[in-house]
Amino acid sequence: MRAGPILAGDLRALARAATAIENRAPGAETLLRELFPHTGRALVIGITGPPGAGKSTLVDHLIRLLRDEGRRVGVICVDPSSPWTGGAILGDRIRMQRHHDDPGVFIRSMAARGCLGGLARATTDMTVLLDAAGFDTILIETVGVGQDEVEIAKLAGVTVVLLVPGLGDGVQALKAGIMEIADVFVLNKADLPGADRLEREVKAVLGLATRPPEVDAAWTPPVVRTVASEGRGVAEALAAIRAYPGGRKAGNWAALLREMLRERLLERFADTDFQKAGEEVAARRRDPYSLVDEWIDTHTI
Amino acid sequence: MRAGPILAGDLRALARAATAIENRAPGAETLLRELFPHTGRALVIGITGPPGAGKSTLVDHLIRLLRDEGRRVGVICVDPSSPWTGGAILGDRIRMQRHHDDPGVFIRSMAARGCLGGLARATTDMTVLLDAAGFDTILIETVGVGQDEVEIAKLAGVTVVLLVPGLGDGVQALKAGIMEIADVFVLNKADLPGADRLEREVKAVLGLATRPPEVDAAWTPPVVRTVASEGRGVAEALAAIRAYPGGRKAGNWAALLREMLRERLLERFADTDFQKAGEEVAARRRDPYSLVDEWIDTHTI
Repeated sequence: MRAGPILAGDLRALARAATAIENRAPGAETLLRELFPHTGRALVIGITGPPGAGKSTLVDHLIRLLRDEGRRVGVICVDPSSPWTGGAILGDRIRMQRHHDDPGVFIRSMAARGCLGGLARATTDMTVLLDAAGFDTILIETVGVGQDEVEIAKLAGVTVVLLVPGLGDGVQALKAGIMEIADVFVLNKADLPGADRLEREVKAVLGLATRPPEVDAAWTPPVVRTVASEGRGVAEALAAIRAYPGGRKAGNWAALLREMLRERLLERFADTDFQKAGEEVAARRRDPYSLVDEWIDTHTI
Repeated sequence: MRAGPILAGDLRALARAATAIENRAPGAETLLRELFPHTGRALVIGITGPPGAGKSTLVDHLIRLLRDEGRRVGVICVDPSSPWTGGAILGDRIRMQRHHDDPGVFIRSMAARGCLGGLARATTDMTVLLDAAGFDTILIETVGVGQDEVEIAKLAGVTVVLLVPGLGDGVQALKAGIMEIADVFVLNKADLPGADRLEREVKAVLGLATRPPEVDAAWTPPVVRTVASEGRGVAEALAAIRAYPGGRKAGNWAALLREMLRERLLERFADTDFQKAGEEVAARRRDPYSLVDEWIDTHTI
């Protein structure tokens, strides 16, 4: 695989590279190294929120708006929550078909990689590829509200958190830890009862929340109301997203580098029979602590 | 720290050991090695479900039932979702006070450990401690529905997933990936409208779901209805939990061993300035791929 055709906008080369990256094919990492210096131009927008908040609908309307502006849009759908079902979910497949004929839209779904983790790394690699290939706006859509979303939010230059009335109250949202990662709140389904109350609660919580130190402390996340199903408020949401000054990138990369290192280290233990070791421990023939020590002692990395 | 007093049931020694384990104090690992051969007797019950499903209330009633039977109950509350707020949540503190005078109940809250992960490991260690100390039933309560919950579910001998009517439909729950890890479903707030529909949906999805290979494929997870706030159905839920034959333990330990190894490997890089490296990458002066290679080359592990 060569970087040239991808940088020149060859869509078939791009699709092949995406598959190679997903499969960790030989040569994928060399390609990424070559592409990396050509990145940093795209606006990377993370979009997260609880299931049922309307993320897919919002993303659809954002794609449409961005295409009307003539932008090239990359979309990465991340579903870290289902390690066994895997694969693209039905809604993504339908969406991919809709944009199938538009060379200005590239959509890829990624599911969890199982115990080895690597979803943050895989999403990073795909972002590098799309950025280098000249997609000027990249949307990373994540399902759910767990630790993985927090990790993946670090990939984005700006993170949008969707909330909807009636999916639990503001305090629950705080508990789920997504309040701290939001640079912009989108209050979707704003025509439902409870929208006013939710907005008040979000603003009250924002007053209390401590934003992590790597985030621009001077920025107060705005709350934008949308009815994404009708496209209402989506342009305003995009304007709010673009107004965010950014500035989290070094911290993001620090976290990602750590994740990449962790993954690379574990690759050296590919020959270790964890299943058999697990049986030994389950039978109490070994303790897990001395077993891990032993592995480290016997592997020169 | 010595194992003797803990194995003999000394509660002050237990509390000191719990704190040492949480803080990764020197000597904690040696203690865990000594305790490990004395474990494997406790029934470890994982309890998960979306925020607002009533996990805390169910756990409260389970504690009461188990205490009435004369059992000693350990409770580990895990909140992996909020990396920045951290600490025990208010409800847990209230609960801990309620059982403060009962030496047969030991409750500990754990929050996320930040980027280094380690929550699965920390929860494992605490389970080892409580099991060795003679707590015959250990409840691990996790908040949320993300990948972390899936990891932590692997610690448990039996996993209970709580669902409630009105927090999104069955298809959403499937999307969130918790259907596959459930050994027992508890349909809480069963007096709310929509309970019948939710039960039908869960059963329909169960018909479609592929349970992971390490799980007993012959077991069909039962759906037990509760109104936990009134204690209704909790005894039936406990009976269903105990009816599960188990058998996931070797696979659980395999995953945990991998996690422990990953964590230990990363400890060797404690002196690495990830923040500075992140700045280099953000400025495109370095690419992340060659940087990680370089770290591995220069660290003899």
